[in-house]
Amino acid sequence: MRIQILGSAAGGRFPQWNCGCGNCRAVRGAGYDDLARKRVAGENGADKDAYKDDGRTKPDASGLAFRGRARTQAQIAVSADGSAWFLAGASPDIAFQIESGSALHPRALRDSPIAGVVLASADLDHVVGLLLLREFQPFRVYAAPSILRILREENSMFAMLNRVEPQVVWTPMNAGRVFPLLSTEGEESGLLCEVHSLAGRYPKYVKTRGLAEEEATAALFFTSGSGKRVAYVPAVGSLSDGLLAKIENVDLLLFDGTFWSDDELQRVQGSSETAHEMGHIPVEESLRLLRNAGTRIGRKMLIHVNNTNPILNEASPEHAAVRQAGWEVAEDNWQVEL
Amino acid sequence: MRIQILGSAAGGRFPQWNCGCGNCRAVRGAGYDDLARKRVAGENGADKDAYKDDGRTKPDASGLAFRGRARTQAQIAVSADGSAWFLAGASPDIAFQIESGSALHPRALRDSPIAGVVLASADLDHVVGLLLLREFQPFRVYAAPSILRILREENSMFAMLNRVEPQVVWTPMNAGRVFPLLSTEGEESGLLCEVHSLAGRYPKYVKTRGLAEEEATAALFFTSGSGKRVAYVPAVGSLSDGLLAKIENVDLLLFDGTFWSDDELQRVQGSSETAHEMGHIPVEESLRLLRNAGTRIGRKMLIHVNNTNPILNEASPEHAAVRQAGWEVAEDNWQVEL
Repeated sequence: MRIQILGSAAGGRFPQWNCGCGNCRAVRGAGYDDLARKRVAGENGADKDAYKDDGRTKPDASGLAFRGRARTQAQIAVSADGSAWFLAGASPDIAFQIESGSALHPRALRDSPIAGVVLASADLDHVVGLLLLREFQPFRVYAAPSILRILREENSMFAMLNRVEPQVVWTPMNAGRVFPLLSTEGEESGLLCEVHSLAGRYPKYVKTRGLAEEEATAALFFTSGSGKRVAYVPAVGSLSDGLLAKIENVDLLLFDGTFWSDDELQRVQGSSETAHEMGHIPVEESLRLLRNAGTRIGRKMLIHVNNTNPILNEASPEHAAVRQAGWEVAEDNWQVEL
Repeated sequence: MRIQILGSAAGGRFPQWNCGCGNCRAVRGAGYDDLARKRVAGENGADKDAYKDDGRTKPDASGLAFRGRARTQAQIAVSADGSAWFLAGASPDIAFQIESGSALHPRALRDSPIAGVVLASADLDHVVGLLLLREFQPFRVYAAPSILRILREENSMFAMLNRVEPQVVWTPMNAGRVFPLLSTEGEESGLLCEVHSLAGRYPKYVKTRGLAEEEATAALFFTSGSGKRVAYVPAVGSLSDGLLAKIENVDLLLFDGTFWSDDELQRVQGSSETAHEMGHIPVEESLRLLRNAGTRIGRKMLIHVNNTNPILNEASPEHAAVRQAGWEVAEDNWQVEL
């Protein structure tokens, strides 16, 4: 099984278009000038040359140097054999992400190796990219019935995915059932998918009332023919026993790395909501809970990292704490083979 | 007045995610590998070094070398003085486009120099970017009443632009009236805007029936305090006398460069629609009509160029014909000062 991490930031990317927080200023001022996901180089000033090679900027007012990378919005692609690929969500950055490597390039005129998109929620940073995959390409969108309703009944724009025949096939999926992901031709791709329902809310834009609560957000599991398993959990508010049992023994866990601490947005941006109120368990809490639970997990990565999160700075104590606990902070363009 | 050309391709960008046409293959194979808008360098093989410096790839099967650049989707920003900026449309690539230069970077925490977005249509490649400008930023969206209805009543996702107070102010605009573009604080920015209604259709996704036909698509005109004028006409099906009169004497015309010929998509992709049927006057026709009409225009650029258009190849006879006629083919990151 091959996994490509195409994007690793939370909604709004890093840097975020209207944000001038310490992290965004540092990564922007330090060479993020041409859309490239560049190693951050030193700012102008006396420290520039000294810091150039290892990508640090000079220390800021707090005395902490910044060393880190720009990131596009969270997006992974998985494949059994590198021929048919499946996206977990469709980020607003998907077109750039497809061009960032050759695996997802078209193989012929009007032809894409992307055979399907599996949705974990109706969050904008997880679904808007579907509107960018509208050039008459046939593929399947797997989603909970409530999420299909939100997209297709509340938002007329998604009709652009059904202008010709064949184009997008909307496929309802239910939590707890294992189902095969199909190639564009309808054949089994060698990957199985399973959905685990999370206690979450629908996004604030949703108008329809009475939607099934358990269909709002999910953890996605992909299993290969040889039994390797990947868990994709980019947004989760708590670590239930059910979720802990499901992620036991996965070979790769991609887990909610949105915020380091519960009051992060309040401190950095004066926001009135805590991480928990926004449906995200803070990293400092999840690391401790997962360690205490003794859950056995292969490789552990934090993904969906918000621009305000101190772990984006590889020179920070928070980043060091994450690495110390055996976790990695996912970066764009990482590839994993299981 | 300052004008930034942030994107110059038609919907789907260049290269387009699922397209393997000659242009897309050439620009992709030739170094478009990391999201950067790079000068296209030579492919591997014997010709590589010979072509490296001027960015040509080796000749393809047709014997024609490719020399050209990748492009993001059509997007311009205009400003009277470089402090408040106004976007004509909001392309799906807007977040990357904001990061491509420093003028649109935030000046403080949660602060953007983007004060408004003026919409010419409800086309997805012209409006989806609004969904990416949702991080609690106050700005104005100017659009025809019918277009406001499509966004706000048919598509619940746009509610994310009104989660806090102040955030987006939706401002109806009517064809034929000149109105001032306002700063975030509600003061005159020094730019005036005028809308000229075009004979066009609503996008195919639109559900609402009975919308005013004349509000479907528009040409946008921006005028500075010193009387300089820019016309933005990225999608137009015919050159009416009314439009010709309006673009007479503009200092900069950004005009529909989607297709070179009427049957371009049919020949390249087997599509069943002509350029005219898709609401675009082909470039070979508009160049001739504009020349014959004798319209006086300052600087003339083609924008919204589709990935199939031969003018993307600077080595093509079509590109030469455009230049010969006194036109330029707009590129990402161009800046114009009037």
